[in-house]
Amino acid sequence: MGKFVYLFSEGNAGMRNLLGGKGANLAEMTRLGLPVPRGFTLTTEACTRYYEDGQQVSQAIEAEILAALRQIETQVGKKLGDPADPFLVSVRSGARASMPGMMDTILNLGLNDDTAAGLGRLTRNPRFALDSYRRFIMMFGDVVKGVEKKRFEAELDQVKQQRQALQDTDLDAEAMAEVVARFKKLYRSVLGQDFPQDPQTQLLEAIQAVFRSWNNERAIYYRRQNNIPSSWGTAVNIQEMVYGNMGETSGTGVAFTRSPSTGENRLFGEFLLNAQGEDVVAGVRTPQPIASLQDILPEAYDQFCRTARLLEQHYQDMQDMEFTIERGKLFLLQTRNGKRTAAAALKIAVDMVGEGLLTKAEALDKIDARSLDALLHPGFAPEALKEARVLTRGLPASPGAAAGKIYFTAEKAQHAHIVNGEKVILVRLETSPEDIVGMSIAEGILTGRGGMTSHAAVVARGMGRCCVSGCAELRINEAGGYLIDAQGERYEEGDELSLDGSTGLVYQGAIQTVEAVMGEDFSTIMAWADEIRQLAVRTNADTPADARSARTLGAEGIGLTRTEHMFFEPERIFRFRQMILAESEARRREALDLLLPIQQGDFEAIYKEMAGLPVTIRLLDPPLHEFLPQKESEIAALAEALGISADRVRDKVTSLQELNPMMGHRGCRLAVSYPEIAEMQTTAIIQAALAERRRGNAVVPEIMIPLVCDLKELAYVKGLITRTADRLIEADGGQLSYKVGTMIEIPRAALLADEIAQEADFFSFGTNDLTQLTFGLSRDDAGRILEDYYAAGIFESDPTANLDVKGVGRLMKLAVQGGRATRPELKLGICGEHGGDPDSVIFCHELGLNYVSCSPFRVPIARLAAAQAQIRQPRV
Amino acid sequence: MGKFVYLFSEGNAGMRNLLGGKGANLAEMTRLGLPVPRGFTLTTEACTRYYEDGQQVSQAIEAEILAALRQIETQVGKKLGDPADPFLVSVRSGARASMPGMMDTILNLGLNDDTAAGLGRLTRNPRFALDSYRRFIMMFGDVVKGVEKKRFEAELDQVKQQRQALQDTDLDAEAMAEVVARFKKLYRSVLGQDFPQDPQTQLLEAIQAVFRSWNNERAIYYRRQNNIPSSWGTAVNIQEMVYGNMGETSGTGVAFTRSPSTGENRLFGEFLLNAQGEDVVAGVRTPQPIASLQDILPEAYDQFCRTARLLEQHYQDMQDMEFTIERGKLFLLQTRNGKRTAAAALKIAVDMVGEGLLTKAEALDKIDARSLDALLHPGFAPEALKEARVLTRGLPASPGAAAGKIYFTAEKAQHAHIVNGEKVILVRLETSPEDIVGMSIAEGILTGRGGMTSHAAVVARGMGRCCVSGCAELRINEAGGYLIDAQGERYEEGDELSLDGSTGLVYQGAIQTVEAVMGEDFSTIMAWADEIRQLAVRTNADTPADARSARTLGAEGIGLTRTEHMFFEPERIFRFRQMILAESEARRREALDLLLPIQQGDFEAIYKEMAGLPVTIRLLDPPLHEFLPQKESEIAALAEALGISADRVRDKVTSLQELNPMMGHRGCRLAVSYPEIAEMQTTAIIQAALAERRRGNAVVPEIMIPLVCDLKELAYVKGLITRTADRLIEADGGQLSYKVGTMIEIPRAALLADEIAQEADFFSFGTNDLTQLTFGLSRDDAGRILEDYYAAGIFESDPTANLDVKGVGRLMKLAVQGGRATRPELKLGICGEHGGDPDSVIFCHELGLNYVSCSPFRVPIARLAAAQAQIRQPRV
Repeated sequence: MGKFVYLFSEGNAGMRNLLGGKGANLAEMTRLGLPVPRGFTLTTEACTRYYEDGQQVSQAIEAEILAALRQIETQVGKKLGDPADPFLVSVRSGARASMPGMMDTILNLGLNDDTAAGLGRLTRNPRFALDSYRRFIMMFGDVVKGVEKKRFEAELDQVKQQRQALQDTDLDAEAMAEVVARFKKLYRSVLGQDFPQDPQTQLLEAIQAVFRSWNNERAIYYRRQNNIPSSWGTAVNIQEMVYGNMGETSGTGVAFTRSPSTGENRLFGEFLLNAQGEDVVAGVRTPQPIASLQDILPEAYDQFCRTARLLEQHYQDMQDMEFTIERGKLFLLQTRNGKRTAAAALKIAVDMVGEGLLTKAEALDKIDARSLDALLHPGFAPEALKEARVLTRGLPASPGAAAGKIYFTAEKAQHAHIVNGEKVILVRLETSPEDIVGMSIAEGILTGRGGMTSHAAVVARGMGRCCVSGCAELRINEAGGYLIDAQGERYEEGDELSLDGSTGLVYQGAIQTVEAVMGEDFSTIMAWADEIRQLAVRTNADTPADARSARTLGAEGIGLTRTEHMFFEPERIFRFRQMILAESEARRREALDLLLPIQQGDFEAIYKEMAGLPVTIRLLDPPLHEFLPQKESEIAALAEALGISADRVRDKVTSLQELNPMMGHRGCRLAVSYPEIAEMQTTAIIQAALAERRRGNAVVPEIMIPLVCDLKELAYVKGLITRTADRLIEADGGQLSYKVGTMIEIPRAALLADEIAQEADFFSFGTNDLTQLTFGLSRDDAGRILEDYYAAGIFESDPTANLDVKGVGRLMKLAVQGGRATRPELKLGICGEHGGDPDSVIFCHELGLNYVSCSPFRVPIARLAAAQAQIRQPRV
Repeated sequence: MGKFVYLFSEGNAGMRNLLGGKGANLAEMTRLGLPVPRGFTLTTEACTRYYEDGQQVSQAIEAEILAALRQIETQVGKKLGDPADPFLVSVRSGARASMPGMMDTILNLGLNDDTAAGLGRLTRNPRFALDSYRRFIMMFGDVVKGVEKKRFEAELDQVKQQRQALQDTDLDAEAMAEVVARFKKLYRSVLGQDFPQDPQTQLLEAIQAVFRSWNNERAIYYRRQNNIPSSWGTAVNIQEMVYGNMGETSGTGVAFTRSPSTGENRLFGEFLLNAQGEDVVAGVRTPQPIASLQDILPEAYDQFCRTARLLEQHYQDMQDMEFTIERGKLFLLQTRNGKRTAAAALKIAVDMVGEGLLTKAEALDKIDARSLDALLHPGFAPEALKEARVLTRGLPASPGAAAGKIYFTAEKAQHAHIVNGEKVILVRLETSPEDIVGMSIAEGILTGRGGMTSHAAVVARGMGRCCVSGCAELRINEAGGYLIDAQGERYEEGDELSLDGSTGLVYQGAIQTVEAVMGEDFSTIMAWADEIRQLAVRTNADTPADARSARTLGAEGIGLTRTEHMFFEPERIFRFRQMILAESEARRREALDLLLPIQQGDFEAIYKEMAGLPVTIRLLDPPLHEFLPQKESEIAALAEALGISADRVRDKVTSLQELNPMMGHRGCRLAVSYPEIAEMQTTAIIQAALAERRRGNAVVPEIMIPLVCDLKELAYVKGLITRTADRLIEADGGQLSYKVGTMIEIPRAALLADEIAQEADFFSFGTNDLTQLTFGLSRDDAGRILEDYYAAGIFESDPTANLDVKGVGRLMKLAVQGGRATRPELKLGICGEHGGDPDSVIFCHELGLNYVSCSPFRVPIARLAAAQAQIRQPRV
């Protein structure tokens, strides 16, 4: 038998997993001798036990609750249900991780007809007592019994109308008594039972309601968004009520030790005199700034300031506190590390180091690396967002905010932008590589289909362009040039929408955006991170522009240049298609000869941007059919341009079709079938390096072979590369060095890494494909499946979104061990989407990789996460 | 520095890997004191070194060759190139594994103008000497220099015409001299150089030619078919020539110690008096049965009989020998374990145990398990096959032979068979589950697309029906009802074709077939195998008929019943489609309710066939779109039958489409999305078991969940099953026990087997999917890729056809370790296609699995292979 109930005086801040965040901090403040209303916490284990027992509170736990209640009653000197001096409590949820507003709260518990009367007598304020009672009936009815709040509010409104009262405060005690009577009647008529008069029954039912609220819809959704496991459960805090609404020497408020929006080192917050917490939330009255409390209740204010400073120093972090002043006496109801904007987080970290409160490492460790995203991308102006109407929610495929006129083809978007200077949102069912230019000029991209690793998502992240993908609710008609939302509303070409790529929300109209700003604190934090981290951070960049942004953001080289995107500009795609449709190797080589100088030029430009840093270039990866047109009109046009029959184009399109293209003719398999492509690409890579060297830039190209599953396969393709490269280098004087390595993205390559390493200068984990193959789950097809898995509670969030440490991670570990056993100096990196995810960066650090590579706008996040990894688990 | 040359007197039979089969046996016979012409062997390592050195014989190896030659010359007392008494040699290939006729041989080496004259003088037979010389020039020109044999033969024919000679033997010495002169002239005119007169040059060039022949096209093809690695290389044997063509006391022959076609224990073979080995092969004269030698050369015959007996006892196996008698003296030129029919193999094994020559284990160990296939399926009558014309070659998807009239739809095939009583061959581009009935009444199935694990292949193997898949050369027009072969010839509906499912060959016309016969020897061998083996053998069976055949063939239960095939009969498919197209769960359940009794009936029938044995039934696995029609006409018909619009059917077909269906919405993912399907299937499984139990058959159903990748997923689906099952069992009195287990077919499941085992009573390795995911290679799309990989020499055969021990096997090992660590009593099996492959069976034995499960007609093969595994690596 465990212990399921702890008095506040028995716990401390270290017991967060057991007591929840709120409970642990209430215990800690109690331990520090701060004025905290007394109470106790039911542990998170009590919650999981409640669910294991089929949603029942066991007799043993009930006994513990009642025993704790008796102890608190003794301390306070009041008894629950005592009409003479009733003990009243609040019942609040409190999980390990903060889930603000997701679960339920019940105040004023313990009131019934008798104790309400008693409280009125005791406080000589029957109106206060009845007001508290009617609030309690409503909360209990709503939270515990599911009687909708608005039905109670309707009753209240009727009383107000009858009495021509404008505000609740206009109602006197007698009116409040009528409200109480009506609430009780409503309760009985809906539920067929009387409002429970026994406070102990009230308490046990309220506790169960809070447990149940752990699994309400919005809590489940919030957990999925924030990767919080449902197995954690919530704790429940039962705490003596204190009242901020007992007159002009009472009040309630919230405050931060520093500004949560700028980080400024000054007490920030607001309070309401003669009010309860819910009044602050309801916004009925406008709260005053906290500083004005100095004049009104100077003693309480001073005490609060001292307490705030003490808490910040104690927790070594900016605190977010709730307090109540009851007849001049200060009570702390909550403290926690305050949520803050990214800018505030950086300023607070830098300041606290300056103040000697934190070391650099401690300061870095406290920053949420993910939050940097907000600094790196435009966002919506907070005021503007308040009135925005949400149209639908898709997947947050690439962060940032965008507003503009919608267009349904890349051509129209380009025309609107270039000719008319419009800000545009490109809307597509799904994007294809032909849309690249349209995507690059758009403010944001919205797609109807496709997941977080769809073409749209990957390309948008590379460009730092906002993207919301997989908006399945929208019916997008590209040909017709309109879309229809779930409510049946129609949006035409030129109508305005706004996208939030960080949340996946799509809004009506154009919402004002604010630009990204990276200030001095950002530079300071990044410099500290760079001092500490062991893991290098490279970028995935396919264009000189990407390379330039990434370098500005601190990338130390390129970990992945995808060469395929280069083929999609109009003039190039034609040559590339000509190559695919060539009837002989000789004709293919002719077409490739025309592509060679173009590709060489691309590489030269990228080398130039990355001068002095390593550049990894991957050979052509996608299946060839992705480059051919699918529409009849495009097929006809291509056939005409090439001077061949449309039938031949169509035959080729058909013959290249595959049942499972992800596991088909792509990656190094293309190099085996069409060595001339790999040879052309090698030639471009090497000639570009030679040309750059002549300009004084000592490039060491790293040529990467995708989709390897076998040593002999790698050796064969490597042979193609080295023969081509060595011939060129020899002809040039023999001075260039280069590396040849392989992606590890097929399970078999990871399993046979010891063999594969014989022929590889480096490994780069392609965790996108590796994850899909390890799970046997195609990301493109996973949407419906995952929805059903969430609904069934099997998965709580996309199991492939973060690096799957148990499965994929085990394969990676086998590969690291195998590879290094054969070749101790083997260079190891990761270039999958996970390379920019903080948790995955930390795992890569632990694995002993040399670098992570991520999209340019995630480079700062990876730099910080790499430092945090080193701080948490130092590597020599 | 290794040793690359061994005299025959230095080797033995155990050195097969180094000396090749022929070389090792020549050495062994030399060691036994048998009359073997003297000589030496260049090792297989000399061959691999030759290739490593860029196809050059190193100076060191050349020196070794010449030193060995000198030693042999001393032993024989003759010298290469000595006109007075020339030493002549044969140069023959000899790999580790027998590759009959695949590589090259050169005889009479050492002849030139001078030594030919000398040999004529010495033998007083100038014609013999010149005949030998012209044969040598032709062989050397052909094999070493690539001058086509037929050009030499044309010269010979001209001489014969001029002299009005009918046969070679009609040419006298003077005519032979002209042939020699013409051959030398031809040699010079084609090659621009004279025929080499230096015997040492001849020898070194001949040796290199044999090395090169290791990589000729037919050798490569043979190796791919027989899984022989190209890295092995071939040895080369240089041996003193002996002559069977030296008159009426000379001769040459081949013989087996027992009949290779029936196994009868009696010397079998034939010989030709006054002839060389190649005359026997050429078939110019008809050889005599070996027994007649007793009268002609009794002494040599007796010596040969004694030698044959000695060799059989020495090798403890039936021997295949070549011999030559030169002027009354017997020489052994080769001995090896003789190839034999499956029937002969069994009889020989049984007889040798009876004779006390072998133990049962030794006898079993010598049988090629794969060869049993021939006993279990019909074959072509050997005479009939001789004149057959091959149309094309596809993949040998399911063994056996079939002849019949071709039809291009299942309906037409059924009509022709049922109404007209025709034997039919079903020809399809690819089969779908709707073709099942047509497949079951066909003699054989031919498909244009799809590999060894395509639908057609899997179903045909289950039925024991002959199938040739992936005949890519044929242009099949299903709608038009014809096919066109690579030569442009057209075959209409009703034309006759024949298929060999064991070789993949497709023949014109109807070739006579002979039925499978399993006799007493078969039963004896199977009984011995069953005594010895530790691994159980189950079957994959989807129908009562499959189950019955499998049980007859010795299956000890069912390891896999695929429930999806059951839904394809006309009445059922309609209900199933109705279920898929239902708009709500309630409507789906209605459709499922109608399927329930049908499926329950299937299971009852299967349980009945398998009474007393375990039956594993897998829940629905394939994606739902496989069940919907694709053609417009069928869509319209279905819509009408269901009373809904064709648009709705079409929308459903579209919405179920996936980019990578193998990694999509299938397997247990269907059970999560549509729990009602899993519930219906569980109900059918359990109710059928309860019904059978009432009939006295104590069934313990094993319910298998496909495509699991995560513990919680397994637990969820298992929950659906156990809730349904337990409710039914309880209602019935609570007496039935059942098991719930999972396929291990996704890499992640293997990696997390320790967790997964918490919820699984058994694991069954689905090596088809596991292999495809581990390689990242879709079998359906692999055709073109593999062709290119063979051409590039990366793969020599389909790396997924046998179980990939290094990659997939490592995952399986991790899964076995993980699973048994959590649950030591975990039952482990395999139900992929590999379960019937002997090498894979042996690996499964080593892994410690409890059983393998394979298609019914592979059960005997698996039983024998399991016994061999135990013999080779005993497990307690």
